[in-house]
Formats: sequence, structure tokens, C-alpha cells
Amino acid sequence: MQNAQKPSGLPIHKYVPFQEQIAVSLPDRTWPDKVIDKAPRWCAVDLRDGNQALIDPMSAERKQKMFDLLVSMGYKEIEVGFPAASQTDFDFVRQLIDNGKIPDDVTIQVLTQAREHLIERTYEAVNGAKNVIVHLYNSTSVLQRRVVFNQDQDGIVDIATNGARLCKKFEEMLSPDMNLTYEYSPESFTGTELEFAKRISEAVAEVLEATPENPMILNLPATVEMASPNVYADSIEWMHRNLANRDSIVLSLHPHNDRGTGVAAAELGYMAGADRIEGCLFGNGERTGNVDLVVLGMNLFTQGIDPEIDFSDMDNIRRTAEYCNQLNVPERSPWAGDLVFTAFSGSHQDAIKKGFEDMDRRAAEAGKTVDDIVWGVPYLPVDPRDIGRSYEAVIRVNSQSGKGGVAYLLKHDYSLDLPRRAQIEFSGVIQRKTDGQGGEMTAAQIWDAFQDEYLPTTDGAGREAWGHFKLASATATSREDGSFSLEAKLSIDGQSTDRSAGGTGPIDALVTMLAAEGVDVRVLDYSEHALSEGGTATAAAYVECAIGERVLWGVGIDANTSTAAMRAVISAVNRAIRDRD
Amino acid sequence: MQNAQKPSGLPIHKYVPFQEQIAVSLPDRTWPDKVIDKAPRWCAVDLRDGNQALIDPMSAERKQKMFDLLVSMGYKEIEVGFPAASQTDFDFVRQLIDNGKIPDDVTIQVLTQAREHLIERTYEAVNGAKNVIVHLYNSTSVLQRRVVFNQDQDGIVDIATNGARLCKKFEEMLSPDMNLTYEYSPESFTGTELEFAKRISEAVAEVLEATPENPMILNLPATVEMASPNVYADSIEWMHRNLANRDSIVLSLHPHNDRGTGVAAAELGYMAGADRIEGCLFGNGERTGNVDLVVLGMNLFTQGIDPEIDFSDMDNIRRTAEYCNQLNVPERSPWAGDLVFTAFSGSHQDAIKKGFEDMDRRAAEAGKTVDDIVWGVPYLPVDPRDIGRSYEAVIRVNSQSGKGGVAYLLKHDYSLDLPRRAQIEFSGVIQRKTDGQGGEMTAAQIWDAFQDEYLPTTDGAGREAWGHFKLASATATSREDGSFSLEAKLSIDGQSTDRSAGGTGPIDALVTMLAAEGVDVRVLDYSEHALSEGGTATAAAYVECAIGERVLWGVGIDANTSTAAMRAVISAVNRAIRDRD
Repeated sequence: MQNAQKPSGLPIHKYVPFQEQIAVSLPDRTWPDKVIDKAPRWCAVDLRDGNQALIDPMSAERKQKMFDLLVSMGYKEIEVGFPAASQTDFDFVRQLIDNGKIPDDVTIQVLTQAREHLIERTYEAVNGAKNVIVHLYNSTSVLQRRVVFNQDQDGIVDIATNGARLCKKFEEMLSPDMNLTYEYSPESFTGTELEFAKRISEAVAEVLEATPENPMILNLPATVEMASPNVYADSIEWMHRNLANRDSIVLSLHPHNDRGTGVAAAELGYMAGADRIEGCLFGNGERTGNVDLVVLGMNLFTQGIDPEIDFSDMDNIRRTAEYCNQLNVPERSPWAGDLVFTAFSGSHQDAIKKGFEDMDRRAAEAGKTVDDIVWGVPYLPVDPRDIGRSYEAVIRVNSQSGKGGVAYLLKHDYSLDLPRRAQIEFSGVIQRKTDGQGGEMTAAQIWDAFQDEYLPTTDGAGREAWGHFKLASATATSREDGSFSLEAKLSIDGQSTDRSAGGTGPIDALVTMLAAEGVDVRVLDYSEHALSEGGTATAAAYVECAIGERVLWGVGIDANTSTAAMRAVISAVNRAIRDRD
Repeated sequence: MQNAQKPSGLPIHKYVPFQEQIAVSLPDRTWPDKVIDKAPRWCAVDLRDGNQALIDPMSAERKQKMFDLLVSMGYKEIEVGFPAASQTDFDFVRQLIDNGKIPDDVTIQVLTQAREHLIERTYEAVNGAKNVIVHLYNSTSVLQRRVVFNQDQDGIVDIATNGARLCKKFEEMLSPDMNLTYEYSPESFTGTELEFAKRISEAVAEVLEATPENPMILNLPATVEMASPNVYADSIEWMHRNLANRDSIVLSLHPHNDRGTGVAAAELGYMAGADRIEGCLFGNGERTGNVDLVVLGMNLFTQGIDPEIDFSDMDNIRRTAEYCNQLNVPERSPWAGDLVFTAFSGSHQDAIKKGFEDMDRRAAEAGKTVDDIVWGVPYLPVDPRDIGRSYEAVIRVNSQSGKGGVAYLLKHDYSLDLPRRAQIEFSGVIQRKTDGQGGEMTAAQIWDAFQDEYLPTTDGAGREAWGHFKLASATATSREDGSFSLEAKLSIDGQSTDRSAGGTGPIDALVTMLAAEGVDVRVLDYSEHALSEGGTATAAAYVECAIGERVLWGVGIDANTSTAAMRAVISAVNRAIRDRD
């Protein structure tokens, strides 16, 4: 057979190959023979490059949560803002310092452009911090020199060195006991001739008096990813080999992901001689994002290399980042997405099952636990438990119908739009039933199973309703002063009883009531939607709860959206109690 | 400053570096000096590898939509299923053939395991198709040989060659005028010793009688991505250089994305000597997905190389894939995500603006249009218009407050959870207002602007309500036989009039009514949610509509969810009419 592909008609004449724009030649490159064997220095830029690319930039409260998360994971260099450009960033940096919220071994980094009043303002922002990196940048690419700055190479070098001189000048503003490090970024490095990148970087390093004892961080950003990642690696190795006074430089990478190869660029660039990598959790950042620090770290861990970052509670890391960024981590995001430890195909499930059996056998033979032997399960490149996740085998129900999915059925026949993790959980419920009964289930049987599992008090199937708690009625009062209270008639193990509690809203108040009954509930996720079918305004609520050690979902349906949400919490609690008993 | 990072406590002792598992040594590799200058042969496996990894596998109707999309984009090799393993796949393949739905220059590909009854069934499925690739696979990795098959290398070779012999035997079942090509995959190639991969591949090629005139496709999957992408490239170049009868082989890649480097593996592997790449649109597929065909194709296009695939209507490609897969394309997905042509930072916006001005100037100087000169705008590696998108500069409103985002404000103060693209659209509305008024807007002003733009008939601000159409009242009737009709009182330019129409539901019927009034509306996206605040069950509906040439959003709020949806359509139509007039 011949290749039958035809021209697409796309306007290819508008684009020029990278190698015709910038020459990168390094035929004697050494990086392809290197193997990564230790973690780089990490710098998390979520609070600056990540934050500036959000539809909704972080509030002070979200910023603090992100900072605390990064510290708790083990990041020691954290870019906390662009204080001269934003009052919010300025205030955030000041309160971190003034309230003593920066651990002694953590260095904060702040970005500034090479302009006098910005540098002065930046130093005001950081004064008094123990460890600070002042990060100076200006754009150096061929395109930006011509289009944005209308300057030749000398003019661009002047911008950078003048900025560096101003930095030195304003150092006298700073408290003398501070540890001050400089970072310089020739921004849009990937669009800059290597000789010019070397020239401007060396000029700045000289002004900033970089020494082996107090080196300058030289950060080489793929501000826009312009070529395949081997080309970035070649350019990094070229800089690594050609930079004067290399021992006075900490060579740093800052890849973006325009071509979808940001992770590769970081790894190959690190092999090419870099010391340090800047990025964001889950690849947040301008446009397609900064390089994903979670992926880079986990890629090391699964090669037996300590990333020096703690990923053991991935779900918490993810939830916090999703809250701070107001962006979801995609289902297929490596190591962290909802679907990455999920096997749908029968042959994969079979191989995984045999892999687990083999782990047990090998551990028994060696007289060890499975956590003490080398991991080796097909299709699972990491033990999900090492990062607080679990493996989910999701079987096909009614696969013959071609509308196999349980979630599809619930959505199309019953208008229930389950959140992704709830879909996976309920697929497991169905699997246990089909394993027990052997074979397939009809749509009606699946709906019956769903009601029995999550909505037992509606008792639609004529079966006896189960559940330790029931919500009989509730009155929610929101007062003008913003306070809230809930009066509820609860049935507890068949006994009707009146309860009341305050809180921020109905769910919060109900959680307080349940705590008084000895049930420890934390609400992790919540969503609600109208059931559009039939024009009624009934709502379905889904709540993911941590109850004791377990994480599980509850579902509530009611014409009143608050009631639906409370029923969902009760549903999760009843399921946890039933499973415990 | 010293590196202050500390051990993470992660159980690194459980993992072994790749190079201690599989030896890949090729110090005289040539691929790093190569530059891609033409498109590979593509094979889209969305209907097989993609489909099997969905929570909800595609129905026949969704399969057909995906097949039609892939054909319309220009894919000539399309894996359509695993017909021996699934009745749905079998039926889908048969109806494609029996109903003549496969263009003459398109080859369908079907997967099968190397077992007699499966091969027989596979041939039943494809009989009568003009062009077919029969794709035979078995797993060859060290791990799977031991754990899953408990066979030595000879045993695994026997599985493969026996399968190949059965393929040859059953060829007599097939209509003699068919063009039959074989593909063989040593599945889990990345976990297989190269010498053994070579041995088993050559043994299968011999049985299948591969020749330069009728070559065998040899597909080398990164079933699980196990190392950095340069290692995959080394292994591909090794195979390329060492395979016997290389001219009788079409060398194919099939990368997955477990380490987030699937795109890089495909690109470097292609540079290393491969001819063909298998993947899925937007990287659907098992776990972290198959390699993303959209990213690979767009990466070629933006280097001035024709991908031989048409990406000129990216939004339609994306919407169709999202419908078929029931998975969203993430906001930061390269070339296609909602946020990839969006600039939030002032310095980026300024550089982009200067880039556009420079394009205009250069075009004028050359006496050409901007579409005839080389693209060069900072931070925009492609002209969004080339793929039917547009650039969005989103300014910060109230950036000083740190809760700058318009979307955040609408959500937190008014419980409106706008879809991502609607957020971006409304940010543009706000930007035009602030540009006009100069400076910032208060929360109340933003809400006022939102109502005036999308909900003018509610007239909450005491302003005169505008809008060509209004929905005064409606009666929706769903009958037992499944039919539906809508009776509506519409106000058209102030004249009250009764209208009725049938359809699948209220939106569909309303669209029919509007068509009768000369308004061409297609509904592209729709979502609705309960307004949880205050415990009322009011719903907000968001509808993205194509109206004539324009794509824009409408919003409707009502206690009745159907009415809210209809109001949203009216809102979009009124906005389009106002802008046109």
C-alpha cells in the first residue's frame, strides 16, 4: 500500500523552519549519552508565572495556600511574585516576611524588569527576608529586538547591564544580614542567537559580580517553545560549554510547552548540563503552561531517584492546586489525572492482576512485604499507593450495546451527570455486583444498583431502605448579618431527633451536626446540577467526603438544591457506616 | 546560596532505573542531527486504542462521527476497532463496508490477537473492504513474558509466528480483489530487549512474506513510556539500522504518554528512521493517552511543513472529539485549548500588539496582505486565524484586589459558573468597556455590564431593555410516544406573536422557530447549573451558538431549566443581531 495522504491546504508559506531562524549546531553534543541520576535544584514559579496566566489570579488567601503547599512538598526556591508590578504581589511578599511565614531554609524569588523605579520597589518588597533571589529579565530574541524594542544588540545589552547596575546600587537599601542571590533571564532565549545570549549573560554576570562562592543564576527560558526538544538541549549544552566563568553560574531551565514537549525539553536540557529547573505544579502557566513539576519529579521517582519533593499525597496536592488555580488537572495528566491508574481493557486488567499476584509471590519467597521488593506490574509504571492513589479496574457493563458505560447510561437515561471520580467509584460498585452475579446487567439493574447504593431512602425499588442517618426535614436561615443556621429533623437509627447548628451554609452546618454524633466528615469536592429532563427543576448533588480513613461519594436529589446537597452528605456517611459495619 | 533540598521519604528502593532493566546503547546515533522536513504516514487509532480507554465507549453513532471527522481531516489509515473482541466493533466495521462509507483512498485497520478463532472472526469483519490493514500483536516485554505468559523467548516467538501463519491460512476467506497489508506489533516494545524485538519481528515478517512491493508495517509501541524520549529514539534507530530486509518494512511508532514525553518520543523516533506514527486526536488513549496527533501535526505546520492533515477548523475538530470521547480537551492543550491564544500579562499584550502592527507594516511595504508574509508575533507561535481561532487579550479587572477575575466575581458574588470560553468572551466585553471608560470597574459595574450584555430583558438596572426577540411564555409537551412540541409566545421587535414547532426538545424546537424567522442558529455547546445561593432552585443556562458567521454565547436564568436554556439561545441571537445592526 502507498501513502495516500494529500496536501492539506494549510498556509505553510507563512511559517519558517526553526533552523532557518536560529542556528544551533553542536554535532559533538554529549547529552544523548547522559542519564539523569539526581534531582536538579527546583524552583516553583506557580505564584508568579503560573498566577499571571490565570483567568482568575489568586487572592491573598489562595496565594498563601499555594505557598504553604509548595513548602510542605519540599520546594526550597519559590518565586512569589512580581511585586513592583502588582500591589497584591507586593502585599503578599511583605506579609510573608513580616509575619515570619518563610522557613529559614526556603528562598523566595521575585521578578523585576530592568527599570529603576521597579528595582527600587522590588527591594522595598523583599527587605528583611533571610534568603532572596532577585530575578532580573529582559527580552533578547531577534523578533522582540526588532518588533518590540527597535534596538540593536548593543542597545539590548545596555538595557540588561543598566538594570544590573541599578540592582547593585540599590543593594544598600537592604538589611545587611540578608542572603541575596541574583538571577538573570535573557527572556525569549529560544529565539535568541546563542552567541548573543552568551554575550549578554556574561555582561550581566560581570556587573553582578558573580563568583563561585556567590554565583548568579542564569535562567534560559523557552519562553515560546520553538523547536523539538533536542534542539533546546543542544542550545543548553552549547551555553554550558561556552559560557565564561561557568563555575560562577547556576544554569537554570524554564521551559514552556507550546509544542507539547516541555517535559522532554527540561529532561534533555538537564542532561545537557543545567543545574536547576523552574516550573509549575501540573504545568500551569502562560498559554500551554510552564513545564510540569509534578511530572518531572515523578519521572525521577519512578527511576529510583529521589526527587527531593514529597508526592506521597498526590490527591491533596492536586486538590490544593485546583483550588488555588481554579483550573482542573486533566483526566490524563501523567501521574495525577483521574484516569491514569484505571484499566478498562480486559487484557490489561488480566495482566495487572497477574502482576499483583507475582508481587505477592515474590515477596513471600523473599520473606518480605510487597513494599520491600522491586515494583513490577504491567501497565502500572508506579505503585499507586506510593502517592496515595489506588488502582481501579473498570469493567465494561453492557459492552455489547455499544453504550456500555455506566456513566453514559446514568446521564442519558436519568440525566445524572456524575463527576469523573464518582463515575469511577460507581463503576467499581457495578463491577463487584457483576462479579458476584456473573455476566452483564441491564440498564434497569444498573439504575436499581445506583439507587440502592447512593439513594436508599427513596426506596424506589420496593426494597427496604437502609441508612443509619436520614434527613427528614430542615429549615435553613440566612440572616442579614451574614450568619446562617440550620434546624434539622434527623432520623438516627430510626429515632427521630431535632438538631441545630450554625456554619457558613447548609453543608457546613450538617457536618457540625454529624461531628456531634461522632462522625468525622470532611467535604473534599462538591458539585450540583439541574436535572434538565422534563423541565422540572430538580437538582442532583454530588459530594466527595473523607470519612475517617475513607474517601467516598454521596449523592442527593431534591427539588431544593440545599436539601439535595445535605442528602448527598448523608448518603456518603451512610455508605461509610455500612461498609464499616 | 546552597541547594537546601532534602530527601523526600518516597520509597525509591522499589524502582529500578530503565538502563538497569533494558540495554539500549547507540553511541553513534545519527538522529540528533536530523531535522524533520516532511509529514510521516499517520494512522489514527481513536476508534480502537482511544475508544477502549473511555469510561463510556463510543456508541455506533459516536463512532461514525469520529470516523467521518478523521476522514474529513485527511487521515488515510484509520484503526476502526478490535472486531473479534467486541460485537459493537464488529458491527461497526461491517456497516462501514456494507454501506460503502469508506472512501477508496482510505485504509481501515483492525486489531487482533494471534489466536485462531479471533483471526477468523477478524477476517469475517473486514471481508469486502477495498483496503485493509490486519494488525496482529502479542506482548514481548521481559515483565510480561515472565508474569503474564510464563514463557521463554522461543515460546513468545511461537505465539507470534503461529498467529502470522493463521493469518496467511485464513487469507483464502477474503475476497481476492482486496488490498491486504499486515501490521505486527511486539506490544510493550519499550520493555523488550532490542535483540529479541528484532528476532521476533523478522520471524513474523518472514511468515507474512513481506516484500518491498508489499511491505509489513512493523509497529514499535511505547505501550508504557519507560524512559526519556532520547532512549526511545535510540531504540528506534537501532531497529531501523539492524532490521533485516528494512525495505520490506514500514517502521511505525505508537507512543503513549506515561512520562509526559509522548510527543517528543514520536518526533525523535521519527527523526531516528521511522516512517509512520499512530496516535489519537488530543492524546486520548489508555491512562495518560496515546501520542496527540493534533500536536504532532500542528508542530509540523508551524515549521512550514504540510502535515497533510487539515486543522483549519480546530474548534469543530475539538467539539466533535469532545462529543465522541465525552472528555474535554484541557484548557492548556497545545494549539487547541481554550487558553492557548490568550494573553493575560500586560507586557505580553503589548508585545503582541506591536507584533501585529509590524505585520501590517511589513505587508504594506511589500504590497501584500498579511496572509502572504511570514508570521512573526511574539508569544503567538501560530496565527490563530489559520486554525479558525482568534487571539484574546484578557485584561485584569480590579487586579489590585487580588480577586481580579471577572469569572471569579460572577461565581462568588452571583453564583454564575461560566463555561471557560464564555469567561473569555465576557472578559473581552469588559475590556472594551474599560478601554472606553479608562481604568477599573467595580464589582457592581461588572455585574451591570453582564446583565446588559446577556440578560437585557430582565432590566435589573433600570436601563431600557434591548433585544429583537423576547420569550414571553412557553408550553412544552413531551408525549408518551417520545415526540415533543413547543408552543411559545414570542415578542419579535415588540410585536407579540404565537409560534409552535416540534423537535427533540425545547432548544431544538426554538431553533426551528428562529429559522422560520430567518435566523440561522446552530447550538455548539450547552451547559446549565443550579444557582445554589439562597437555597432557591433557579437555574443558569449557557449556550454557545453559531449564528451566521459568528460564534457567541447566550445566557438565560429562570426557575424552569427549559426556559433558562431557551432564554440563553434568545440572548445569543439578540447579541448577534445587535452587533450586526
